[in-house]
Amino acid sequence: MRPGGEEFRTIWQKPGSPEVVQIIDQRKLPHEYLIADLVTWQDGAAAISDMLVRGAPLIGATAAWSVYLAALAANGNPEPAAAVYAAIDSLAETRPTAVNLRWALDRMRRIVDRAAPEELVQRLEQEATAICDEDVEISRGIGEHGLGLIEAISERKNGATVNVLTHCNAGALATINYGTATAPVYFAHAKGIDVHVWVDETRPRNQGSQLTAWELAENGVPHTLIVDNAGGHLMQHGLVDLCITGTDRTTRNGDVANKIGTYLKALAARDNDIPFYVALPSTTIDWTMTDGVSNIPIEERNPDEVSRIYGKSADGFTTVDTVGSNTAISNYAFDVTPARLVTGLITEAGICDASEEGLSGLFPELAACAG
Amino acid sequence: MRPGGEEFRTIWQKPGSPEVVQIIDQRKLPHEYLIADLVTWQDGAAAISDMLVRGAPLIGATAAWSVYLAALAANGNPEPAAAVYAAIDSLAETRPTAVNLRWALDRMRRIVDRAAPEELVQRLEQEATAICDEDVEISRGIGEHGLGLIEAISERKNGATVNVLTHCNAGALATINYGTATAPVYFAHAKGIDVHVWVDETRPRNQGSQLTAWELAENGVPHTLIVDNAGGHLMQHGLVDLCITGTDRTTRNGDVANKIGTYLKALAARDNDIPFYVALPSTTIDWTMTDGVSNIPIEERNPDEVSRIYGKSADGFTTVDTVGSNTAISNYAFDVTPARLVTGLITEAGICDASEEGLSGLFPELAACAG
Repeated sequence: MRPGGEEFRTIWQKPGSPEVVQIIDQRKLPHEYLIADLVTWQDGAAAISDMLVRGAPLIGATAAWSVYLAALAANGNPEPAAAVYAAIDSLAETRPTAVNLRWALDRMRRIVDRAAPEELVQRLEQEATAICDEDVEISRGIGEHGLGLIEAISERKNGATVNVLTHCNAGALATINYGTATAPVYFAHAKGIDVHVWVDETRPRNQGSQLTAWELAENGVPHTLIVDNAGGHLMQHGLVDLCITGTDRTTRNGDVANKIGTYLKALAARDNDIPFYVALPSTTIDWTMTDGVSNIPIEERNPDEVSRIYGKSADGFTTVDTVGSNTAISNYAFDVTPARLVTGLITEAGICDASEEGLSGLFPELAACAG
Repeated sequence: MRPGGEEFRTIWQKPGSPEVVQIIDQRKLPHEYLIADLVTWQDGAAAISDMLVRGAPLIGATAAWSVYLAALAANGNPEPAAAVYAAIDSLAETRPTAVNLRWALDRMRRIVDRAAPEELVQRLEQEATAICDEDVEISRGIGEHGLGLIEAISERKNGATVNVLTHCNAGALATINYGTATAPVYFAHAKGIDVHVWVDETRPRNQGSQLTAWELAENGVPHTLIVDNAGGHLMQHGLVDLCITGTDRTTRNGDVANKIGTYLKALAARDNDIPFYVALPSTTIDWTMTDGVSNIPIEERNPDEVSRIYGKSADGFTTVDTVGSNTAISNYAFDVTPARLVTGLITEAGICDASEEGLSGLFPELAACAG
């Protein structure tokens, strides 16, 4: 079961024991591949808040499956819905700013609102399954549309290696499978196209070295890890053909908020005439915002993420401090890349310009709703 | 004795024991301030090759003082010069690509060529002292000229904090005192100007968090450590007034090679209309090159620098591995920032445009010599 392979999932029911949900404990990657059992909804809540799982789609899916676990525990009670609603309320608090978490819980809540007590477990199981299946289909759509970009470059280069640079992990591990930014790469690799990925380390949390590199390696996709500082040099020297990143939020006009540092890579791509694409499910478009730099609030996270580094030591696993005690640390989590630097947006419905015209052309109903 | 303070030196003769040379073991910073004694020239060679000292001017000075130690050991021999020449040859091999190392050794060699055996120790002591004193004067010149830039911004902001962003360590620790990029900051701070420094962590070797942050803290200069990814976001939001970096090599036309990632910050500065200055001693101008991106070879260093992180753990000091075994790593050490992105060059002789006209205007004799 390889990330990016057909059968891979980041969350699933245990074979033979559908009352247990399983996930990968992503905290130990790339050093250890540990599967964690979620037996109670509280296990699911802890998996989210302790970051065994991360990535908006996977967080949403984990919350959905946790609601199913809550219903299982309440099964047989005369009024199981009360316990399930309480679980939903608690789950919503695990990561207060995660939009996808609330979206998934709202879907599950609507099932609880309508289901008869005796069918509650089955209906919630179906809904959690549907949330996951729909996410896979979205990633598949992004992969198929993005594949065309890589194919075109491969043809132009007469089959020579296509070098893709990505930042952070918008990969299979952040979704249910395929990822967003990585989906075109997996589809190209599966089709036999010679594709190689430059993986930004992605300080401070190292999602590139810990997650993206791991999942590419597991899937056999050629890749090379670089520090976040290196991308500009590579682009100056013709070593990057295409950049693809994910995004946490896209404004109506095509500005993209993504992991801190994305903007710097977009600037380098522009300076070297390299296409810079952003892959996203339409659910992450915020139709109410029209100026990402001014409108999108940027979370500041714990300085320990910068100063404390986790890794494998001679004696096991250790965290080391790298910063002196008389130094203040600032830790902005995201930055905004203005639409003018984005060559195009790769969505499940197709590729469009990073503009209101582009987005509303692909998603006229969503644009009209919010407009 | 604070870095950036009047009396600070990164290398000195031990008070009361001038036959011992002392340095700071920079490998343990910022966690421990250890002074290392250099008693033999071999101690000096090891200090260079094991990177107790780094930074071109300090490497050169350490080599010079090591030649003095070699002469001390040979003192009383009928032919002390032979042993000193042998030491010079060995010292030249400690860091084969360090231009400053060879320059300093050539100066010392010329003394050996001319000095009588009985005055050799004294003459070499004088020359090593001169090399250090001259370097301090160069940094002082850069500091005084760069101070004007910070003063002007402070006045424009009516005394509000001037935020300077720097990358890597072009600080007191890389030179004998004051540094190059940090010299204007130290001079502004000493003059009572409200100046604050954003310190790029500078992956992979973390010279920002380990060295620049430490020396600013020791000198009481307000500063905040950020990951290398963060600078663009800060510039977008008006939190940076001025960028100053160092450079390892400047071409005749004003292109600058500096620590990997410098180019990305210059792009962000340009995109946000923020002045981007590079501080350099005229000795680092390479008058033979006119296209930095094409001409300057970029060293690739050991991948372990990326994957292995040294820091303080609960049990002392440990190195942790952060990368999986199936991932290749590429580690380019420098990048080139084209002159078009550089607002100006701060030298010991003044500030000029990053152009052939600018540089040859400040250094007409050097330009004529090489042209």
